[in-house]
Amino acid sequence: MNQKQWNKKDLLGLEDLSREEIELILDNAQSFKEISQREVKKVPALRGKTIALLFFEPSTRTRASFELAAKRLSADTISLSSSTSSILKGESLLDSVKNIEAMSVDLVIIRDASAGLPWQVASRIAAGVINAGDGCHEHPTQALLDLFTIREKKGKIEGLKVSIVGDIAHSRVARSNIYGLKKLGAEITVCGPSTLIPLKIEKMGVKVAYDIDEAIREADVLNVLRIQKERYSIDSQIPSLREYRRQFGITRERLRRASKDILIMHPGPINRGLELDSEIADVRSVVLEQVTNGLAVRMAVIYLLTGLLTKQTSLT
Amino acid sequence: MNQKQWNKKDLLGLEDLSREEIELILDNAQSFKEISQREVKKVPALRGKTIALLFFEPSTRTRASFELAAKRLSADTISLSSSTSSILKGESLLDSVKNIEAMSVDLVIIRDASAGLPWQVASRIAAGVINAGDGCHEHPTQALLDLFTIREKKGKIEGLKVSIVGDIAHSRVARSNIYGLKKLGAEITVCGPSTLIPLKIEKMGVKVAYDIDEAIREADVLNVLRIQKERYSIDSQIPSLREYRRQFGITRERLRRASKDILIMHPGPINRGLELDSEIADVRSVVLEQVTNGLAVRMAVIYLLTGLLTKQTSLT
Amino acid sequence: MNQKQWNKKDLLGLEDLSREEIELILDNAQSFKEISQREVKKVPALRGKTIALLFFEPSTRTRASFELAAKRLSADTISLSSSTSSILKGESLLDSVKNIEAMSVDLVIIRDASAGLPWQVASRIAAGVINAGDGCHEHPTQALLDLFTIREKKGKIEGLKVSIVGDIAHSRVARSNIYGLKKLGAEITVCGPSTLIPLKIEKMGVKVAYDIDEAIREADVLNVLRIQKERYSIDSQIPSLREYRRQFGITRERLRRASKDILIMHPGPINRGLELDSEIADVRSVVLEQVTNGLAVRMAVIYLLTGLLTKQTSLT
Repeated sequence: MNQKQWNKKDLLGLEDLSREEIELILDNAQSFKEISQREVKKVPALRGKTIALLFFEPSTRTRASFELAAKRLSADTISLSSSTSSILKGESLLDSVKNIEAMSVDLVIIRDASAGLPWQVASRIAAGVINAGDGCHEHPTQALLDLFTIREKKGKIEGLKVSIVGDIAHSRVARSNIYGLKKLGAEITVCGPSTLIPLKIEKMGVKVAYDIDEAIREADVLNVLRIQKERYSIDSQIPSLREYRRQFGITRERLRRASKDILIMHPGPINRGLELDSEIADVRSVVLEQVTNGLAVRMAVIYLLTGLLTKQTSLT
Repeated sequence: MNQKQWNKKDLLGLEDLSREEIELILDNAQSFKEISQREVKKVPALRGKTIALLFFEPSTRTRASFELAAKRLSADTISLSSSTSSILKGESLLDSVKNIEAMSVDLVIIRDASAGLPWQVASRIAAGVINAGDGCHEHPTQALLDLFTIREKKGKIEGLKVSIVGDIAHSRVARSNIYGLKKLGAEITVCGPSTLIPLKIEKMGVKVAYDIDEAIREADVLNVLRIQKERYSIDSQIPSLREYRRQFGITRERLRRASKDILIMHPGPINRGLELDSEIADVRSVVLEQVTNGLAVRMAVIYLLTGLLTKQTSLT
Repeated sequence: MNQKQWNKKDLLGLEDLSREEIELILDNAQSFKEISQREVKKVPALRGKTIALLFFEPSTRTRASFELAAKRLSADTISLSSSTSSILKGESLLDSVKNIEAMSVDLVIIRDASAGLPWQVASRIAAGVINAGDGCHEHPTQALLDLFTIREKKGKIEGLKVSIVGDIAHSRVARSNIYGLKKLGAEITVCGPSTLIPLKIEKMGVKVAYDIDEAIREADVLNVLRIQKERYSIDSQIPSLREYRRQFGITRERLRRASKDILIMHPGPINRGLELDSEIADVRSVVLEQVTNGLAVRMAVIYLLTGLLTKQTSLT
């Protein structure tokens, strides 16, 4: 494992990382992916370390992925969610986090509906912090696993044309992907209903397409976002789900005009038959490989943040 | 540990198992029961394996029993219940399960209100699946622990007279017990209100008694089912709880006409004073031994399903 | 580790402990605090033991503290809360506990709104029981961590003047502190609104002050209780929260008349700006050190109760 260049205690967003730091995580993730394919998928690297999982929004795959990543590194985990926590007693989240830290927790993984919260937490505690999604802002490990998957499937990221389709305005996945892809040299097109494309998104260095066929035509990679029906009143932003599917849904028809090698990704969970047809999801997409890669990426991030470099600990 | 004859990836229901397979599980459970009585109750057999617990119905003892069984085999566990999961985001259960599997999970233990769901899941994933109760259909590990307890207490199952009393129609415990007991050669009588005895139950090879005294009189084993007040509108099926107790409740009075050695079992949790009197539950029944045996049986099932045979791993 | 004098299977309340037993726990906690400051914070002492956490009231820090304490001793843990449990099926708590015990659980840690419940449970099961808070009655590990913190900061407890301020009537923290502090020779003053001071509290050997300045003036230690807004109708007992703050809130102003070395404690979570000002909480109090000490104290209690003495097991 190469930990030489890593010197941050937190992973908050891809906006904050250099190309070298991103590549370092991806390289480490490659090693951890190999470990996950062994019969015994566990390494003793973080024995005696404690990782707190603070998920204040519902999550299956991200929480499970982080929890398994921690356990396969032999760390102890402790889970707190809003329903079981003292949040009920009116304690502030920051007080909760400082209390968790006072129990000698080494790393805090946090998901919350408030954009920016992980930065606030990170600046106030000595323990490492990983942002597992903050509102509509960033979701760095999702973007890292997307980058990992693209690099693995295409052999490179530099120069690739990547189209991101859907609700760009409310998507932390889109934002983190844009930051990461730009740093690694991809050309990005975002596509969606005009109500769901942020004003001045071009300042992030991306092109905008309002026509899905244009976004698909030259793309090497198509990253299809989830319509997050639970996160805001979708009705006020698009005419109808049926109309969304007609204009932006990824169907077999539509992919006829795409490159044969187009890589189709989705962060999950998929609304089948809305943004992505079942047939495409199951046969042509790499959604399950993304999940597998997510575990490897999260093992790498946890491993790097717990700062084993200075301790000269070996992985096996 | 004898893993020679085991070659299934799943444990879905006792209807699917042969007598030899059932006996193999019971024999393995015997060894695990001995381990549970040691000072250090943990064996390293499944170190580096991951087991997902998907419980979509409330459960104390079954979930706890499976979780402890997994931990005592040194497996890592991950728990998902409907309240914390992406089910909230409208993800299908099958997509959730496939995602869990993509994280290199070795075994999925699933409880759900839908009959047949574990079979659907098992046919779609490579990981092993254990049915921890599917609607009113099967609950194989409960029946296996009942068989284990009978064999331990009576020395055999072949030729024993077993009466199962209560709501046969809605009981997955009854169905799995009937399949298992038949295969091991017991004679079965089911007893309960006529509204709670399925039509044509005789086709399963059991006798029906509508009179509790008849069911008790010659029984070697009395398996008293729980009136599952939470599962359906009991009011529409029996006159009243008081009338149920009067006609079918197991009391000291009623047991005067039973064999002195009659073995009284209950899958728990008991409605004390309804289907079973407290005095009988606490003094004469083996309900807590059933719980102890349940852990051993579940360790055996998990151990067999994770297919250590081919890897030549030794238990200790 | 000194386990010589310990011979109880349970820790239920400080009323039941001798001075020697309390000091034994504090001495052991000292050793565990040192372990918590190591790089690898885990010891194999309780490998193969199982600890059940039964929390039937919301809790962040206490549950997390116990869970981490158990994990750092290498025990396996199983968590049950009312929402996931068979309590939904109408099972009695005692039946649940006996079932957990039948799975060879070594220790049960229980929090419940009913005063006295841990005693009932302890008398009915062979496994050890720790009271993690029973209604308004006792919270022994909180008091032990308070005693530990006082002893660490002041070098002794004998002869110190300790003022406990707030809702004495409904506070299990206050009751356990009074029992423990008396046994270790402190002089105690309780202070709060007359509606929140129990009648005849003097029989516990404490002085009563209705004026906060009097409670502060000569105190070596000030233990500020939380106004538990969620636990009862505060409106019926105090004029208003604003009035409470004016009369009893700990502010910089008020501390001008205190000893310079006064030790300011709070069991958390703090209602900032109500019973304790943020500035005092963050700069002058030892609330986070209390949390750290709580983990050490709980490791000590778990370690002593699991009775390793007779087995001659060594800690490292």
